Amino acid sequence: MTLRKKVYSILEVTREKKKGLAWFFDIFLLTIISLNTVAIILHTVKSIRQETDVFFVGFETFSVIFFSIEYLLRVWVCVENPKFQNPVWGRLRYMVSFTAIIDFLAIFPFYVSHFTTGSGLIRILRLFRIFRLFKFTRYIHALRVFENVFREKREELILSFVLMLFMLIISSSIMFYVEHDAQPKVFSSIPATLWWGVSTITTVGYGDTFPITPLGKFFAGVIAVSGVVMIALPTGILTSGFSEHISSRRKETHPHKFCPHCGKEIEKHT
Amino acid sequence: MTLRKKVYSILEVTREKKKGLAWFFDIFLLTIISLNTVAIILHTVKSIRQETDVFFVGFETFSVIFFSIEYLLRVWVCVENPKFQNPVWGRLRYMVSFTAIIDFLAIFPFYVSHFTTGSGLIRILRLFRIFRLFKFTRYIHALRVFENVFREKREELILSFVLMLFMLIISSSIMFYVEHDAQPKVFSSIPATLWWGVSTITTVGYGDTFPITPLGKFFAGVIAVSGVVMIALPTGILTSGFSEHISSRRKETHPHKFCPHCGKEIEKHT
Amino acid sequence: MTLRKKVYSILEVTREKKKGLAWFFDIFLLTIISLNTVAIILHTVKSIRQETDVFFVGFETFSVIFFSIEYLLRVWVCVENPKFQNPVWGRLRYMVSFTAIIDFLAIFPFYVSHFTTGSGLIRILRLFRIFRLFKFTRYIHALRVFENVFREKREELILSFVLMLFMLIISSSIMFYVEHDAQPKVFSSIPATLWWGVSTITTVGYGDTFPITPLGKFFAGVIAVSGVVMIALPTGILTSGFSEHISSRRKETHPHKFCPHCGKEIEKHT
Amino acid sequence: MTLRKKVYSILEVTREKKKGLAWFFDIFLLTIISLNTVAIILHTVKSIRQETDVFFVGFETFSVIFFSIEYLLRVWVCVENPKFQNPVWGRLRYMVSFTAIIDFLAIFPFYVSHFTTGSGLIRILRLFRIFRLFKFTRYIHALRVFENVFREKREELILSFVLMLFMLIISSSIMFYVEHDAQPKVFSSIPATLWWGVSTITTVGYGDTFPITPLGKFFAGVIAVSGVVMIALPTGILTSGFSEHISSRRKETHPHKFCPHCGKEIEKHT
Repeated sequence: MTLRKKVYSILEVTREKKKGLAWFFDIFLLTIISLNTVAIILHTVKSIRQETDVFFVGFETFSVIFFSIEYLLRVWVCVENPKFQNPVWGRLRYMVSFTAIIDFLAIFPFYVSHFTTGSGLIRILRLFRIFRLFKFTRYIHALRVFENVFREKREELILSFVLMLFMLIISSSIMFYVEHDAQPKVFSSIPATLWWGVSTITTVGYGDTFPITPLGKFFAGVIAVSGVVMIALPTGILTSGFSEHISSRRKETHPHKFCPHCGKEIEKHT
Repeated sequence: MTLRKKVYSILEVTREKKKGLAWFFDIFLLTIISLNTVAIILHTVKSIRQETDVFFVGFETFSVIFFSIEYLLRVWVCVENPKFQNPVWGRLRYMVSFTAIIDFLAIFPFYVSHFTTGSGLIRILRLFRIFRLFKFTRYIHALRVFENVFREKREELILSFVLMLFMLIISSSIMFYVEHDAQPKVFSSIPATLWWGVSTITTVGYGDTFPITPLGKFFAGVIAVSGVVMIALPTGILTSGFSEHISSRRKETHPHKFCPHCGKEIEKHT
Repeated sequence: MTLRKKVYSILEVTREKKKGLAWFFDIFLLTIISLNTVAIILHTVKSIRQETDVFFVGFETFSVIFFSIEYLLRVWVCVENPKFQNPVWGRLRYMVSFTAIIDFLAIFPFYVSHFTTGSGLIRILRLFRIFRLFKFTRYIHALRVFENVFREKREELILSFVLMLFMLIISSSIMFYVEHDAQPKVFSSIPATLWWGVSTITTVGYGDTFPITPLGKFFAGVIAVSGVVMIALPTGILTSGFSEHISSRRKETHPHKFCPHCGKEIEKHT
Repeated sequence: MTLRKKVYSILEVTREKKKGLAWFFDIFLLTIISLNTVAIILHTVKSIRQETDVFFVGFETFSVIFFSIEYLLRVWVCVENPKFQNPVWGRLRYMVSFTAIIDFLAIFPFYVSHFTTGSGLIRILRLFRIFRLFKFTRYIHALRVFENVFREKREELILSFVLMLFMLIISSSIMFYVEHDAQPKVFSSIPATLWWGVSTITTVGYGDTFPITPLGKFFAGVIAVSGVVMIALPTGILTSGFSEHISSRRKETHPHKFCPHCGKEIEKHT
C-alpha cells in the first residue's frame, strides 16, 4: 500500500468502523472542530476575550495550520477515490465539491485577513469562520434521511414557501394602508410592514410592531389564523414525506416473498 | 392560421413548453409583474419615493398600458377557447372568470383615479394595485395540488375554523369579566379582549395585552394549551389530506397490473 | 297528528331537511342566537352601550321570553322522543341532558338577576349569557367527527396533557430557584413562575416574564425546545386519529366485495 | 404467606386491580405525593409561607418519615421480585433502579440539610424536593406508549435536535455580526445572540431581543420561516411514529385469520 493510499484510508469517512490511527484522526478532527466552534462563540464575549486573547490567537493559528494540512492532504489523496481519478481534472472537480469548499472556507479567511486592512472585510472574514461548523456534516450520515425527504418533497415545500411569500406581501400591503395613519412610524412603509407580517405569520410575535386600530386588529387576527394554516402546510408535507420514506425503506429491507397481509407465498411476475 | 389564433397561442398558458415568441411573452409578462410588485412595495418607502418618483410614475404608466393591451387582446382571442366560443356571451363569461377579473383589477384603479379627487378613494385604489401579484397564479400549475387538498378537506377545515371562533368568543368573554376590573383600559370590552384571544390561541403572543390577575393568568394558561390543540386540528386535517392525495395520485399513475400485496395478476373488473 | 307531535317535529333537529314552518323555525332560532351573541359582545363596548342601552334591554327581554317559550315547549314535547317516553321521569331525564341544560342556562340568569342585588353575582350571571352560543351545537352535526377523534384518542391526549403539566411544574420550579434572586418581583414564587412556564411551553411568549441571567436563559432555551416537542405530541396524536377515522369510514361506506388492491372477488368467511 | 411477601404485594404496582389494604396504600401514597407537590409550590408564595410555616414544617416532616419508611420497606421486600432475588446484590441492584433512585432523592435532601449550613446548598436541596413528583411515574403505565414512540424514533429526533442546534449557532453568529453595531447591548456577543435565536426558532418570541436594522430584520424573517420548518421536523417524526405504533399494536391484538385485503383464509407460515 502506497503512502497516499494509507493517508486516504485515514482521512476518508467510511461506512465500516475505522480503527487505530484512522479512528484517532476522526476523534481528533471532531474535537478540533468542536473546540473551534466554542472558541468562535466565546471570543465574542468581551470579558472572556480581554483576559484570554493570547490563548485565542494561539488556538486559531494552530487550527488553521491543522486544517490547512488536512485540506492539502485531502486534495493530494482524493485521486484514490474512483470518482476523482484524474490527477488534474479529478483534483479540480474534488476542490469544487461541497465538503472541499467547506474545508477551504474554513482556512481561507485567515490568510486573506493578513493582506487586507479594511475592518469591514475583516469582520466578514471572521464571520466566515463559523462555517467550520459545517465540517461536521461529513460525519453525519443520518442527514441523508432528511435530505431524501426534503428532496422528494422539494416541489411542495417550495410551493408552500411561495404561497407564504404571496400571503406575506398581500397582507403586509393591506396592513400598511390600514395602519399607516395610526402608526406612521411603525408601519412607515410596506417593507417595514413586512417585518410585522413575517413575525405574525410565523407566530413568533416579538411585540415590537402590532396594529392598534380596530380594523387593523381584526385584519391581523385573520392573518394570524391563516398563518397557522400556512404553517400546517410544511408540517403536513414533511409528515407525509417521513411516512412514505419509512414505508419505502421497509420494502427495500424486506423484499417480501410472502404477502405481508395474508402470509401466502408470492409468485413474482417479472 | 388566423392572426387571432396566433395571438391566442402566444397568450395562453399551455401544458407543453412554449417556444419562440410565446415563450418570450411569458418571460416578459412575468418580469413585468415581478417588477410591479417590487415597485409597489418600494414606492411606499419615503426616501426612495422622493428621489425617484418620476421613474415610478413612468413605470406605472408603462405597466398599465401593457396590461391594458394584454387584457384587450385576451378578451379578443378568448373565443378561440372552446369554453368561450360565443362572440358575445363567451367573451362576457370569460370576463367574469377569476383570471380575467384579476387582469381587470390590475388596470382598473389607474383609470378610475383620474376621474376622482377623494384622497381616501385614491389610497384604496392604490392598494388594489397589489393584486397584480395574483396575475402570477396563471403560471403556478402546482397550486392545483394544494387546491385539491383544501377542497377535499373543506368541511373539516371550516369546522375547525368554526370551533376556533367558538373558543375565541367564549374565552374572550370569560377573560373580559375576569380582567376588566384589573385592567379596565386593556380589557375594555369583549371586542377588545378578542384581540388578546386571537393572539393567544394562535400562539402569536405580541405581548401588548396579557392578564395580570392570578385567575386571569390561570385561565390564559388553559386557553393557551387549548390553543395548541386547536392549531393541531388544521395541521392534522391537512396532513391526512396530503397523505391521501399522494396515495390516490400513485394509483392513477401506476395502474398496477399485479397486486402489490399478494403479487397475483389482476384481471380488471370494469 | 296531535299538536304535541307537530310541535315536536318543528322543534327537533332531524337528519333530513326540514320544510315549511319547521325550516323557518330553525332559521329564526339560529338568527336569534347569532344576534344574541353579537349583542352580548357589543354590549360591553361603552360607547355603544351608552347610546343604545334601551335597545339592548328590549332585545334581551325579547330573547329571554322567546328562549323560555322554546324551553317549555321542548320539555313539553320531549316525550315524543322514544328515549324520554315517560311523562315524569322521561321529562326529568331530558332536563338533565346536555342540550336541555344549555337551554336552561340561556334563560336562568335573567330571572335570578331580578331577585338579587349583589353586583358580583349579577356580573357572573351576565357572563353566563355567553353560553347561549352553545345553543348552536344542536345544529353542528359535523362536530361528531371531531368528537369521535377526540374520544378515540382520549387516553393519549390526556396523557400528553399530564406530561405537559409535569414538565410545566418541574421546569417552573427549577426556573424559580434560578431566577428568583435576579428578578425577585417577576419570579416571586413558583405559582408566578408557572405563568412564565405556560407562556414558554405553548410558545405564546407574551414577553412580560423572561429570564435575564445566563443560566436562566440557557434553561429557558432548553424548555422552549422541549415545548416544541410537547406541542408535537397532540398534533401527532390528532393527525393519526384523523387518518384512522378516514380509513375506517371508508371501510364502512364501501364494504368491499372485491379486494381493493387486486379487484378480485372476495369470498367472505363469516 | 410471609410478612415480607405480604408487604411486597401491598407496595408493588401490579397490572390487575389491587384490593383492600394494597388499594388503600396506593390511594394514600398518591394523595401524599400530590399534597407534597402542592405544598412545595405554595411554600414559595411569601404571604402563604409566613402565615402557615408551622404547618408546612409539620407536613414536610411527616412526608419524609412516611417516604423513608416506604423506601426502607421497598428495599427490604424487593427480593420477592425474581429480578432482585439475591439478598445483597439484588437489593443493591434495586437501589440503583430508576424508581428507587427517585424514592431516595425524595428523602435524601431532608437529612442532608440538617448537617449543612451553606444557604446555597440548602436551596439546591430544597429544589430537589420537586422531584418527588416523579414518584407518580410508577403509576402511569400509559407512559410506555410514548416511551416506545420516542425510543423507536430516537435517531431521527436526536438528528433533528442536532440540526436545530446547527441552525441556531449559524444564524446567531450571522445575526451577531449584522446587529452588533446597531444594538451593542442587546446583541453583545454570540452567546447573548443565541438567546434571540432560540426565542425565534421555537417561535416563542418574547420580544426582549429583536433586530432593528433592515438587514437584521430580513435575516430574522428567513430564520423565523426556517424555524417553522425545523419545528415541523419533530412533529412529522412523532406523527409517523404514532401511526406506526398504532398499526403495529393492531397486528398484535388482532392476529387476523383472514387477510383484510383479499379475504382469503390465512394459513400461518411459522
